[in-house]
Amino acid sequence: MREIYRQELSHLGNDLESLAKLVAKALDRARLALAEQDLELAEETIDADDRIDDLAMDIEGATMHLLALQAPVATDLRLITGTMRLAQNLERMGDMAMHVAQVARAAYPEPATPSQIQEILIQMAKRTLDMTLDLGTVIKSSDAELAQKIIDTDDEIDELHRKARRLIRDPEVELTRDQIINGTLLSRFLERTGDHASKAASRIIFMIRGEYVPH
Amino acid sequence: MREIYRQELSHLGNDLESLAKLVAKALDRARLALAEQDLELAEETIDADDRIDDLAMDIEGATMHLLALQAPVATDLRLITGTMRLAQNLERMGDMAMHVAQVARAAYPEPATPSQIQEILIQMAKRTLDMTLDLGTVIKSSDAELAQKIIDTDDEIDELHRKARRLIRDPEVELTRDQIINGTLLSRFLERTGDHASKAASRIIFMIRGEYVPH
Repeated sequence: MREIYRQELSHLGNDLESLAKLVAKALDRARLALAEQDLELAEETIDADDRIDDLAMDIEGATMHLLALQAPVATDLRLITGTMRLAQNLERMGDMAMHVAQVARAAYPEPATPSQIQEILIQMAKRTLDMTLDLGTVIKSSDAELAQKIIDTDDEIDELHRKARRLIRDPEVELTRDQIINGTLLSRFLERTGDHASKAASRIIFMIRGEYVPH
Repeated sequence: MREIYRQELSHLGNDLESLAKLVAKALDRARLALAEQDLELAEETIDADDRIDDLAMDIEGATMHLLALQAPVATDLRLITGTMRLAQNLERMGDMAMHVAQVARAAYPEPATPSQIQEILIQMAKRTLDMTLDLGTVIKSSDAELAQKIIDTDDEIDELHRKARRLIRDPEVELTRDQIINGTLLSRFLERTGDHASKAASRIIFMIRGEYVPH
């Protein structure tokens, strides 16, 4: 029985790592769709979100199963409830990638925003991709230092977010109505992606250190 | 021991109900701050968010405590993990109320958007308030019909969201750059509030019916 339980726990860790990889792929595609007005990539990102949702749901189901059958305590309980929360963060990050792709698709064949703002958004998208790739590594390695790096990267994203917002509000920067709307939404979606990655990283740190500090 | 456990469970339900009430109050204030350019109410809404965050964190801590010490199964497990998720939804709804108030504050003394769009946003805010008040009732009464009503109301909010977006994109509707940005953000925040309320209501239905169906 304990052997099966350990196998299930290990399986759960693998699933979470796979989820992080799917989300990283979605963010990478969304970024390219945005940067290169690539309609096909935008469609692929949007279509791929179902798989992310399904896997997140499977993980949540598995955590409930483990809680119900194994009544874990201490470290295992933290591990299992932490996994539940991490899956939620990753699922929302996948949603954000989809939303970014939806904006890129709606703007096609035009870029969603002019290059001055587009460049900042692409930088934000790159940072969220880095964070997500690092999350995948941290899920496997429990490397608290790398988790801290993820949290620090979120400060860069917030700074880029403020920069994008300033430009969008600046009357000197010529923008069409659609560009104002697109820029506002894209910057918000990417800022939220960074938030979720940062929250996920904090959660992992507390799982490693054994303190339970909810957000 | 069981007696203390039942008391803790009951305490948890009361806290969740209090959280729903705090969020309802925040949404009510945010709506008024928006509708009447009331700077003081906007500030109050923003300041009150800390209390919402603290209570949500207390509830999460209490659910972890119950899981660790009581190793609940079946109905109680669903109740406790469901409560954890409901607290998260309510906490995010509180954040959205704060964001709405922040937009109202930044626009002060002007209205955030012109009256044609403002009216739709106020309607959205009213619906999210209704949903939240109903959530508070459902948390206490486990009334599945009322929970279903909350889910149905979200369709109205989504329809209002589409209507607001159409107006904001419509070149015939005269808008300043700030009004375009404010309208885009406010409509998004209120749509998300409705989403969270609807997810919370679905979760309650599944808690009542005893099926576990994650989002």
